[in-house]
Amino acid sequence: MMKPNMHYADLKDSYLFFHIARKIRAYQDAHPDARLFRMGIGDVSLPLPKAVIDALHEAVDDQADKARFHGYMPEPGAPFLRETIAAHYKKRGVDVSPEEVFVSSGASDELGDLLDLFDRQNRALVIEPAYPAYVDANVIAGRRIIHLPSGEENGFLPEPYLEATAELIYICSPNNPTGAVFTREKLRRWIDFANDNGSVILFDAAYEAYIEDEALPHSIFELEGAKTCAIEVCSLSKTAGFTGTRLGYTIIPKALVRSGLSLNDMWVRNRTTKTNGVSYILQKGGAAVFTDEGQRQIRENIAVYKNNARVLTEALDRCGITYCGGKNAPYIWLRCPDGMGSWAFFDYLLNEIQVVGTPGEGFGACGEGYFRFSTFGSPADTEEAARRLVRLLRKG
Amino acid sequence: MMKPNMHYADLKDSYLFFHIARKIRAYQDAHPDARLFRMGIGDVSLPLPKAVIDALHEAVDDQADKARFHGYMPEPGAPFLRETIAAHYKKRGVDVSPEEVFVSSGASDELGDLLDLFDRQNRALVIEPAYPAYVDANVIAGRRIIHLPSGEENGFLPEPYLEATAELIYICSPNNPTGAVFTREKLRRWIDFANDNGSVILFDAAYEAYIEDEALPHSIFELEGAKTCAIEVCSLSKTAGFTGTRLGYTIIPKALVRSGLSLNDMWVRNRTTKTNGVSYILQKGGAAVFTDEGQRQIRENIAVYKNNARVLTEALDRCGITYCGGKNAPYIWLRCPDGMGSWAFFDYLLNEIQVVGTPGEGFGACGEGYFRFSTFGSPADTEEAARRLVRLLRKG
Repeated sequence: MMKPNMHYADLKDSYLFFHIARKIRAYQDAHPDARLFRMGIGDVSLPLPKAVIDALHEAVDDQADKARFHGYMPEPGAPFLRETIAAHYKKRGVDVSPEEVFVSSGASDELGDLLDLFDRQNRALVIEPAYPAYVDANVIAGRRIIHLPSGEENGFLPEPYLEATAELIYICSPNNPTGAVFTREKLRRWIDFANDNGSVILFDAAYEAYIEDEALPHSIFELEGAKTCAIEVCSLSKTAGFTGTRLGYTIIPKALVRSGLSLNDMWVRNRTTKTNGVSYILQKGGAAVFTDEGQRQIRENIAVYKNNARVLTEALDRCGITYCGGKNAPYIWLRCPDGMGSWAFFDYLLNEIQVVGTPGEGFGACGEGYFRFSTFGSPADTEEAARRLVRLLRKG
Repeated sequence: MMKPNMHYADLKDSYLFFHIARKIRAYQDAHPDARLFRMGIGDVSLPLPKAVIDALHEAVDDQADKARFHGYMPEPGAPFLRETIAAHYKKRGVDVSPEEVFVSSGASDELGDLLDLFDRQNRALVIEPAYPAYVDANVIAGRRIIHLPSGEENGFLPEPYLEATAELIYICSPNNPTGAVFTREKLRRWIDFANDNGSVILFDAAYEAYIEDEALPHSIFELEGAKTCAIEVCSLSKTAGFTGTRLGYTIIPKALVRSGLSLNDMWVRNRTTKTNGVSYILQKGGAAVFTDEGQRQIRENIAVYKNNARVLTEALDRCGITYCGGKNAPYIWLRCPDGMGSWAFFDYLLNEIQVVGTPGEGFGACGEGYFRFSTFGSPADTEEAARRLVRLLRKG
């Protein structure tokens, strides 16, 4: 008798965004004419930059032409894209070889697949509040989770300590949901800790393009010692609007070796066994992001989202609400006013001003009492949401 | 200390097609002017059909337009594509609901990912000769493999028997590499066997579009009882030339339940945790395959490959070489003449007539002494390869 992977039964009943969608549906059923201002799920609203669109069209035309047609792509990624991304790192002073770059279908796909590299007895340390899939993907694999809570006292950037150690360590910086960004000094402590303990850091850099403070690291590999302890998972979703188009990349240094096995070699073998490579069309579109024109265009889009962040944080300032993020990150993490719970605040904003955010509790127990706004909405919606927040929440 | 997944060390040293590539490179270095006739790896040579190209361009334009832009897609697949595929099954008299259809990035990606549904203590039965990734993906997961050899005595379509039972059963029909196709009667025995033992059949239908004999099943779900024991993995790679564009789909019936868990529910949860859905652009391109125009155009391309198969099998007939496949499948599986070994025959064809095929031994031990030709090459190359085969191998 086939036995299913019974760890699925250990997953919590359903997913954060599913709950939110259900509550929204119920509200809309009761108020069919209401207009909602969605500052909840982190999906972009601006179309793809022109450089990407042009490259996608060209790639589609290649697939229509016998002489230019591309069949199976190399499983770890097309050489043209691996080289482009390695050159992009070099511009920032980070030495990564094309063979250390793997093309993926996006960060969330990759964060799930990568777990195949690790023994199931490894524990996974998740700094919370956190993207829920870090926990769930490890629960499915039967791994023990160490929940490391963070809070205002450490700026949501906790330090490592031996009593909460694990073989796998998730670090997301800029952070989803808190918007907190690890400084070089704070990140250095985790690198030293990982090297001392033989842990591997899964560094989620999906939001690095939102960093504006030049002192903050975009890549963990800007710091010495990271190549012997870290894998960096990157995405074009928020960088270039690829949430529905899909493309990402991952850096696995050749120097990352455990028990005599090179994790880079293992990942090559994994990809050649378990995939047939990422779509040629999408890889061509992705490469266009790294051209001068592409970089200029994504900066324009990111500036729109950054202005949304400014509009929302100014509104929160006027309301006297405590928050972090929004400056070097596309998320704003706020303390619910008057000691309200996360879901109570969700219901309050939905019912009173039709503004939808994400309850902090969905990102782990220590997120209770907090709330996340994403800055990816349209400027007009964001401005109206800000006005409504001020109207509802400004004191006195 | 992080412990890697040590099962990678149990994998055989390197991959079939890597060995072939190395031998070809060595030959080309020694004979820089030689022209090779590649009947080896199963990659298509014809560009995408026009209906697909048009749909891809349209989808790219959608991504350039604020009002039509698509962000995150539903993780199990876009409703428009799930419905299209369910309707396609209905045309063949197979009742599949859209919720039983999952969109994937292709069959090989899906065959790797799906293993996440199963306990690692399950054994995997692989009918050999077989696509090497069936074995390797299970070795990576630490599963025990039951190798079930097949041969000419059973037309490469072995029957189940209790001494060789397993919780997971791989069936590929039309088969890669043998080109053998399960009849309804022979497939029925495996369905009964799986239902009797609670096994789950992973039915790889990647080559179903090549079936011309109307009595042969395209889908395992054409047979009663399959919905309680089978998952069907499909691909547009060989059906519509998507090897480098990437798209597939998978049917997981709601009736497939083990230990009280619905495998369909589990897969929804897996996809929502471990992916963010498949590219909108690719899903639009895939949907065009199922339009009347798309179906007509893929038939034209498949007819080209089928003519290649006819050219090659006629040559083998003239040489008196025993083979199967090539009629309802894009692969031809032949017995190496004069008792030659697979790799010896590979070297012989490469050195004497510059024709490249795939040594049968690469598909499992029982493939030794056999050889695979793929029919996806250009008609001109295939005809020249056929002429050379006849010149080299015709007796008397």
